[in-house]
Amino acid sequence: MALIVQKFGGSSVADPERIKRVAQRVVRAHRARHQVVVVVSALGDTTDELLQLASQVSRRRPPEREMDMLLATGEQVSAALLAMAIHALGDKAISFTGAQVGIVTDRAHTQARIQDISVQRIQQALAKGWVVIVTGFQGMTPDHDITTLGRGGSDLTAVALAKALNAKICEIYTDVEGVYTADPRIVPTARKLPTISYDEMLELASLGAQVMQARSMEMAKKYEVPLHIRSSFSRATGTIISKEVRAMEDLVVSGVSLQKDEAKVTICDVPDRPGIAATIFTRISDVNINVDMIVQNVSRTGLTDVSFTVSREDLAKVLRVARRVASEIKAGRVIHDDGIAKVSVVGLGMRSHSGIAAKMFQVLAKESVNIDMISTSEIKISCIIRKDQAVKAVRALHDGFGLNKLGLKPEAVKLARKKR
Amino acid sequence: MALIVQKFGGSSVADPERIKRVAQRVVRAHRARHQVVVVVSALGDTTDELLQLASQVSRRRPPEREMDMLLATGEQVSAALLAMAIHALGDKAISFTGAQVGIVTDRAHTQARIQDISVQRIQQALAKGWVVIVTGFQGMTPDHDITTLGRGGSDLTAVALAKALNAKICEIYTDVEGVYTADPRIVPTARKLPTISYDEMLELASLGAQVMQARSMEMAKKYEVPLHIRSSFSRATGTIISKEVRAMEDLVVSGVSLQKDEAKVTICDVPDRPGIAATIFTRISDVNINVDMIVQNVSRTGLTDVSFTVSREDLAKVLRVARRVASEIKAGRVIHDDGIAKVSVVGLGMRSHSGIAAKMFQVLAKESVNIDMISTSEIKISCIIRKDQAVKAVRALHDGFGLNKLGLKPEAVKLARKKR
Repeated sequence: MALIVQKFGGSSVADPERIKRVAQRVVRAHRARHQVVVVVSALGDTTDELLQLASQVSRRRPPEREMDMLLATGEQVSAALLAMAIHALGDKAISFTGAQVGIVTDRAHTQARIQDISVQRIQQALAKGWVVIVTGFQGMTPDHDITTLGRGGSDLTAVALAKALNAKICEIYTDVEGVYTADPRIVPTARKLPTISYDEMLELASLGAQVMQARSMEMAKKYEVPLHIRSSFSRATGTIISKEVRAMEDLVVSGVSLQKDEAKVTICDVPDRPGIAATIFTRISDVNINVDMIVQNVSRTGLTDVSFTVSREDLAKVLRVARRVASEIKAGRVIHDDGIAKVSVVGLGMRSHSGIAAKMFQVLAKESVNIDMISTSEIKISCIIRKDQAVKAVRALHDGFGLNKLGLKPEAVKLARKKR
Repeated sequence: MALIVQKFGGSSVADPERIKRVAQRVVRAHRARHQVVVVVSALGDTTDELLQLASQVSRRRPPEREMDMLLATGEQVSAALLAMAIHALGDKAISFTGAQVGIVTDRAHTQARIQDISVQRIQQALAKGWVVIVTGFQGMTPDHDITTLGRGGSDLTAVALAKALNAKICEIYTDVEGVYTADPRIVPTARKLPTISYDEMLELASLGAQVMQARSMEMAKKYEVPLHIRSSFSRATGTIISKEVRAMEDLVVSGVSLQKDEAKVTICDVPDRPGIAATIFTRISDVNINVDMIVQNVSRTGLTDVSFTVSREDLAKVLRVARRVASEIKAGRVIHDDGIAKVSVVGLGMRSHSGIAAKMFQVLAKESVNIDMISTSEIKISCIIRKDQAVKAVRALHDGFGLNKLGLKPEAVKLARKKR
């Protein structure tokens, strides 16, 4: 008997049929003598429908407090319906809003941060043998105003509850089977990873592999909440995310990712003196644009080129700022390129293995892929290349690092059996 | 400057356009320097849609606690949307759930009774000059479980808040213009009453004139909360309901009502001894059937006939019980008649005027309407007649008591002007 938190996203509870399927899955865990706490998102399109209603009653931007009041109803509906569906299968279930279980947040409506959870009501219900269902994505201020947690908020609720209840595992049900070595739509030989570390997942999340938002992953890492990313449409084991993954230590690279929605901006002939980079990037952050990679070439002439990448949708805005700052600091012209892609390899093993970067460059060279920019972290190497060579590059890197040959390790198989 | 409670039902907030119209009306009162507390029902079909979702996830009867959790979202949506619509017009508004404003009820889910209201949060918001919007139909138990108040629950919320806040008036917005001397669809000469007493409205409500449920009317009477029943689609003054209505004292009868959904049951040849009536009607109430009129003829032979009326939909059930009890008490056969109608005249003035019953019987006799059963209360006389004579009878009684000649009294006119 263990305490398990299960989180089901909007696509898992999109309609009554799917809610009934979720109920069966919850009941299966409950009858296996586990204590089960379920976190649910709103039914499929509910949030969009509510947003549409809001835009119909008000052309002005509505007060965020009222927006939270409105949107929070979505999860309340799915929580109550799931409780009914579980009851129909003969098990006892009780639903709570975030406010009812004492998820206290700050007052930043639509983007609130969890400050405290008082788990007493949940524990009382669990002690009576009930399945507990909690609305994801929401909490309340100390004055009992309803707040929502922003994008990925239901994952955050699940992780925070798992921590507060000291759950054995937090299962995140989604529409993919787990975390893959690469996007299976691009790399046919991609394999599901049985395990992965928080840090690797954080790098993958920041690279656009959106199984789970970085914010929830950071919380899971901080409190060492073990996660299990798995499909709500199959009974197969997914991917376990935890602190350090022993079985994976011999795997240097655990995933290859591709991002195609960035653009590169270069400010040419920047005077190479202290404080110049600070000036440039302060101006850009002042207009709320996130810069991803930054590369500055070594200066030989007292002038240098500064290149950086931003999300393509920010390109026009960033060009205006960059041209203004370039003229102020007496730099040269500003050029841009939106025909780029970023390929990255991620792996904890890099920390103790040398030569990964060299291997990556060799693989790309062999495929005649030219590298435009390079950036590295402790467990990640990213290269900017031409967009039309991106698919070829990702496939070559995936197989070049042996990920196509990845089999389930004995320990992973054991773990998978235990889960069934 | 006065404190006004305004209640808008589901048809008044059926869609975004209507919500915007309600917002305009609220803002008008607010800008006339009133403190305004608004109680809203769920958007038009919301409750039906939620009930349908519930039936799709569970063929069993769902737990009532979860039903309340589900249904309470309906008013939360309309309250938030109305706050946004008011905000779009430039006034400040804040929405609260029943739980947030401390409407504490008992634990009778789906039929909860209000036990306490702590109006502190409302008063704080009013003091800041905000319009306060409260979800109708719902509250919470002392353990913070969400409850709903059953049919007519939003009216109840409005009346209870008006009492707790000591409001000057509780305006009930609906899709009729006010309370009429008779159903205008049946009696073309029916007139809108400028004023009526709680007691008269209670009798009319129990007779099926469903402007407002008897339960809310009883609470309004108990706490002497003045009500104003008016249309949400026009600016005309409606009907004021209060304790005693001076302007109406010369009006003996204030309304004629008709009910066609009853059936009559007669147990023949009942032994006339003490306790027999108790036996019969205890059995009927044991199966949760409400009996309306009861008539027992004077016994001359030691045997008597006991007749009573019930709602026609209960007829089959009540016949089974009546036959069983008739055989037990050694009475005769049980006969029934569902071709009946009940016409009633209601008026406070009856208490001090004699001859109203005689006048009623004369009017009916003149129209050749035969009277089958008679029942009287202090301010009401009801007669059971043939259903096919019902319309003729109602029209004759309406005009016979002079209700077609009812004009707006000077005092009522003054009141109507003040409202505009």
